[in-house]
Amino acid sequence: MNKLHHHRAQFPALANKVYFNYGGQGPMAQGAMDAITVAMKYIQDIGPFGNEAYRWISPQMQASREAIASLLNVPSDTITLTGNVTVGCNIAMWGIEWQAGDHLLLSDCEHPGVIATAQEIARRFGIEVTTCPIMATLNGGDPVSIIADHLLPQTRLVVLSHVLWNTGQVLPIDKIVAVCRSNNSRLLIDAAQSVGVLPLDLTALGVDFYAFTGHKWLCGPAGVGGLYVHPEARESLHPTYIGLNGVTTNTQAQPTGWQADGRRYEVSTLSTPLYISLTQAIAIHEQWGTAEERYQQILYNSEYLWQQLNSLPHVKCLKNSPPESGLVSFQVTDQPSFKLVQSLEAQNILTRTIANPNCIRVSVHYLTLASEIDQLIAAISN
Amino acid sequence: MNKLHHHRAQFPALANKVYFNYGGQGPMAQGAMDAITVAMKYIQDIGPFGNEAYRWISPQMQASREAIASLLNVPSDTITLTGNVTVGCNIAMWGIEWQAGDHLLLSDCEHPGVIATAQEIARRFGIEVTTCPIMATLNGGDPVSIIADHLLPQTRLVVLSHVLWNTGQVLPIDKIVAVCRSNNSRLLIDAAQSVGVLPLDLTALGVDFYAFTGHKWLCGPAGVGGLYVHPEARESLHPTYIGLNGVTTNTQAQPTGWQADGRRYEVSTLSTPLYISLTQAIAIHEQWGTAEERYQQILYNSEYLWQQLNSLPHVKCLKNSPPESGLVSFQVTDQPSFKLVQSLEAQNILTRTIANPNCIRVSVHYLTLASEIDQLIAAISN
Repeated sequence: MNKLHHHRAQFPALANKVYFNYGGQGPMAQGAMDAITVAMKYIQDIGPFGNEAYRWISPQMQASREAIASLLNVPSDTITLTGNVTVGCNIAMWGIEWQAGDHLLLSDCEHPGVIATAQEIARRFGIEVTTCPIMATLNGGDPVSIIADHLLPQTRLVVLSHVLWNTGQVLPIDKIVAVCRSNNSRLLIDAAQSVGVLPLDLTALGVDFYAFTGHKWLCGPAGVGGLYVHPEARESLHPTYIGLNGVTTNTQAQPTGWQADGRRYEVSTLSTPLYISLTQAIAIHEQWGTAEERYQQILYNSEYLWQQLNSLPHVKCLKNSPPESGLVSFQVTDQPSFKLVQSLEAQNILTRTIANPNCIRVSVHYLTLASEIDQLIAAISN
Repeated sequence: MNKLHHHRAQFPALANKVYFNYGGQGPMAQGAMDAITVAMKYIQDIGPFGNEAYRWISPQMQASREAIASLLNVPSDTITLTGNVTVGCNIAMWGIEWQAGDHLLLSDCEHPGVIATAQEIARRFGIEVTTCPIMATLNGGDPVSIIADHLLPQTRLVVLSHVLWNTGQVLPIDKIVAVCRSNNSRLLIDAAQSVGVLPLDLTALGVDFYAFTGHKWLCGPAGVGGLYVHPEARESLHPTYIGLNGVTTNTQAQPTGWQADGRRYEVSTLSTPLYISLTQAIAIHEQWGTAEERYQQILYNSEYLWQQLNSLPHVKCLKNSPPESGLVSFQVTDQPSFKLVQSLEAQNILTRTIANPNCIRVSVHYLTLASEIDQLIAAISN
C-alpha cells in the first residue's frame, strides 16, 4: 500500500464511493471526527462551565486560530473564527462604514449569498453595486484590466473569489491587490475554493479581507470557518454582529471597547470540539505533505482528469488549458447535466451541477486516486 | 434508584462534580453526545456532499426546528437556527430599518453583548439608546410601569431578558408585550435563561422576537441556538448577515428573494450533527417530564436552596422571596465572591460570580438533587 492509499484509509467517506465533491464539502478523517467525540467528553469531565473548563477551552480555540494562521502565513491575531465562509464575507461587507453613493464591485462569478448580501447593503445604505465580467476571461483576456476598468473613484470594496467556484479559474490576486490599493478600495476575497488548495501567503499577498471555510478542502467539520483581516484594515472595519467574545468589559460587566485582535468580530459561544477537529484536520493534511506538495498533487490530478475528459465525445471542458485548481468543470452535449450527475451518483460517483455556466463540476483533491478518475471517465463514456 | 437518579445517570458531567452552572452551560446527556458521533459517521457514509446527503440532512434540520417550535408552542416556520442566543439578538436588532432619531430601550440587566450591539447600532444609524432601571424591582416596584415610563414615541425596539441573568428575576412579558404594542414598539426577548426553564407559549405571549440558545438549560451542545420571529414581524425585519440558506435563487443561481420562513435569517453551512444533538437533548428532557413538571421541580429546588442560603450567616440572597427561575443569586459578607467560587470549585462544586450586582450565581435545574444543595450549603458554611 503506497503512501496515499495509507493516508486515504483515514477517511471513511472515501472507502465506499468515488468522491468528487471536495468543493462542496470535504470528507473527514476518522481522527478529526474522533477529536470531536473526545473533546465533548473531556469538556463534560471538567465542566462544562467553570474556571477549569475555561482554562482548557480558551487555549484550544487559540490553537485553532494558530493552525489557520500558519496555513495563511499571517499572525494569529488577524484571525476571526466564524461558522462558515459566508459569515466571514458578511463581516467584511457590513463592517465598512458605507455612505450613500459609495460603490461595491463584484465579479460575475460570485456566490449567490455574497450577491444577495451586496444587494441588501445597497438597499440599506443607498450604495451602488456593479458586476464586472470575469467569467469570459477563463480562456483569455485579462481579469486585472477588467477589474481596473470597473473601479470608480467611490469604490469602497471589491469582492472576488480567489478560485471561481463555477469554472475553477484562479484570479491573480497579487495584481488585483495592487489595482485596488491604488484606487483606495478594500479587497475582500471569498476563499471558499482556495484555502486547502493553493499554497497561501496572505502577508505577501497584502489582501485586506480573506474569508474561508474549514469544511471544504480542509476536510474539517461543517460549521467552522474564519476571516483574515489585514492589521491595517482592522480599525476601519467595524464589528456588526456583536457579542461577549468580541468586547472588553469593566468590573460592572459593561462593554468598554473591542478586543484588540480578530476576536472583535466573533460573537458568542462557539463549538470548541468543532474547532479542535479543524486543527486536527489541518494537521492530518500536513502529515501527507506540505501545502505546496498538496497543491502540486491537486494540479497533477486535475490535469489528468482534464486530459481524459477532453478525449471523450460529447464532453467539453470549460477551460482550454490545464486547470490551476482542484475544480474541473465541463459540459455534456448528449444529455442534461443533472441527468448525468444523477446517473453517476447511482453508481456511487459523486459530482455536482453548476447553474451558471450550466455545467458539471468535478473536484479533485490530493486525496484523489488516478483510478477514481478512470472510473469517472469510464462511467461518463458509458 | 429513583426516577431522577436514573435520569441523571445519562449525564456524565453530573457524575464527578456538584454542578450549579446550568445558566452558563448545561451538561450533555450521553445520548445527545452520541447523536453527534453517529450523525457525523452517517454523513460520511452517504456523502458528505451529494443529493443523498442533502435528502437526509434537510429533514434533520427541519426536525430540529420542529422540536424547538414545539417547546415554544409556535409554528416551525417561525424558527431561525443560529449559533447562539447573541446571534439571534443581533438578527433582530440589526434587522430593524433604523432611522436617525429612533430610540432603542434596554433594561439595566442586559447581557454585555446586547449592550455593545445597541451601542454600535446607535453609532452607525444615529439612534438613541437608553436604559431603564429594572434591577431595583427585584423585591418590589413594577417593572411594567418603569418600562412604560421609558417608552418614547420614537421607540422602535425594546430589548429585555425574560429571566434576568444576574438576579434571576422573571419579567412579566405578557404585560410588557401589551405596553410595547400600544406604543408600536417591537419587543425582543433575550431568552438565554428562560428557554428550558419556563413553560412557554410564545403564540399566546405575542412577543415579536425571542432569541435563545440550546447549550444552557436545554443541555444541547455549544454552538446551537435560535430565534423566533412573530409571523407579523417577519416582513419588516430585514436579513442582515445573508447567505445561500436564506435566499431563493433562479436557474442562473442569482438571488431572487428571501426564503418565505425563518430560514431567511440563516446564512450558510451549519453543523447538522449539533442540531440533531439538540433535538435529542430536548427529547431526553421530555422523557423525565413535561415542561410544566420540569419547571415545578426547578422551583422546588430553587426554593429549597434559597431557604437554606437564608439560614446561613454572612449570606444574603438578593431576592427576598422564593425564586421564580433556576437562578439563585446571593452575596457573602465575609469574603470576596470570587474567593468563595474558587474555594467551591476546589471542592468540585461549580458556581460562578456575577459582576453587577456583585454576587454569586447558583443555577439549579430539575436535574439538581437536594443532596447537592446540601453539599453546597455545607461547603459555604465551612
